[in-house]
Amino acid sequence: MMQTLLTIAYDGTAYAGWQRQKNAIAVQQKLEEALSVLFSQPITTTAASRTDAGVHAMGQRAAFFIDDMPIPLEKLPNVINGFLPRDISVTAAEAVPDDFNPRFGAGYKTYAYNILNTNVPNPLLGRYSVHEPRKLDLGEMKNALGMFVGRHDFAAFQATGSSAKTTVREIYGFTMANQSSGLVTLSITGGGFLYNMVRIIAGTMLYIGLGKLAARDIPSIILSRDRTQAGKTMPPEGLTLLEVGYTKYRVLE
Amino acid sequence: MMQTLLTIAYDGTAYAGWQRQKNAIAVQQKLEEALSVLFSQPITTTAASRTDAGVHAMGQRAAFFIDDMPIPLEKLPNVINGFLPRDISVTAAEAVPDDFNPRFGAGYKTYAYNILNTNVPNPLLGRYSVHEPRKLDLGEMKNALGMFVGRHDFAAFQATGSSAKTTVREIYGFTMANQSSGLVTLSITGGGFLYNMVRIIAGTMLYIGLGKLAARDIPSIILSRDRTQAGKTMPPEGLTLLEVGYTKYRVLE
Repeated sequence: MMQTLLTIAYDGTAYAGWQRQKNAIAVQQKLEEALSVLFSQPITTTAASRTDAGVHAMGQRAAFFIDDMPIPLEKLPNVINGFLPRDISVTAAEAVPDDFNPRFGAGYKTYAYNILNTNVPNPLLGRYSVHEPRKLDLGEMKNALGMFVGRHDFAAFQATGSSAKTTVREIYGFTMANQSSGLVTLSITGGGFLYNMVRIIAGTMLYIGLGKLAARDIPSIILSRDRTQAGKTMPPEGLTLLEVGYTKYRVLE
Repeated sequence: MMQTLLTIAYDGTAYAGWQRQKNAIAVQQKLEEALSVLFSQPITTTAASRTDAGVHAMGQRAAFFIDDMPIPLEKLPNVINGFLPRDISVTAAEAVPDDFNPRFGAGYKTYAYNILNTNVPNPLLGRYSVHEPRKLDLGEMKNALGMFVGRHDFAAFQATGSSAKTTVREIYGFTMANQSSGLVTLSITGGGFLYNMVRIIAGTMLYIGLGKLAARDIPSIILSRDRTQAGKTMPPEGLTLLEVGYTKYRVLE
């Protein structure tokens, strides 16, 4: 038996998320079908992150076991891609130990949330972003970034009805980049995230940009552990899973 | 009568190009239908560029006449967008004189051609680009850029069977940008372009990147006036009409 870890990029627009569903097409299903046809045997995969419907990925990871790997790993991505639709692509493949777990072994994950802050929507800039026509106060948003970083109880930033054992998570880094095109990208790296946590943090940042909340409100929102104190849950199409890291997170200066 | 000039962005993937067709849906049709419903009268438009099927636009321009404009021009884009599909968006509207012609009045046009030079395709980077897995010699491509600039007979870079009165055109600028993601963007600005000229120049640049042609070959290819000497015609999905300018082109340093 040999375990292989794939890196996968996908445009999530057409899919019901990563995880297999009964009545909708998921990315996992497309990938497992491709692998099963390619290797002429049923293949199941375990992913690092169960991305929601409509969420995109540049660096999702998924692993599978096979008795004999008949294809050199450096050629495997291109071979698998021949069996996948254009909106899913395997970008890398590597051998990992049998006891490697792509989900629980992850040291950190980085997500990007894109907001297109222009007067009118733009199809070429907008497929992987959410359009916000009201002018955002980017300076105040920048002031808020550091207040999320660190080890906190993020219960206020979790979808109601979630059942995580603990709501303490650590954010390693949170940055914002804005382009002249009006595209504002929030990039957040953490050891793990609660359900909808990135989309709720993005909605809270939006409220700060709109003046509905101030940067200085963040510490008390975190302390409140009250979902109603934070901003709205932003739509899935603005969210992209950028990277899953299997080492401890280190800040590279 | 009043003439209004619109700036339009579109994702060309789903369309048979700009110009109205009998048996396929064109961007012009979608825009004219939206305007006709909005103003409760038949509206026809004249565009700056007849982009081909699958070609994208950030700054297409199209003008139309109407007796009375019932909507303030600054609000017009958002109002029209309410009648358009998500992959077409009007981004600006301005009043122009009656004798203004959006096509023949254009002083310059800028197109971008995107090549994704990575081992494997990537859906999030690839929707507006063409994938090329072979490693490109970007230095040699950069050497070639300046050889296209200036006033030349571009007969070798015109689709066979074209009937332009003269094949002399002037290129004002030609630049190349490459990102760490592997995306290589060729941006070309000229007073006008022959049919398929940008896609043939992009194909010639690709051949230079692959070592099939050298930068120093460009002057003799231009002099040959022979289509078979230049590179292939690149696919439409890599091409985006970035901007149409209605002033004389000036280099901004």
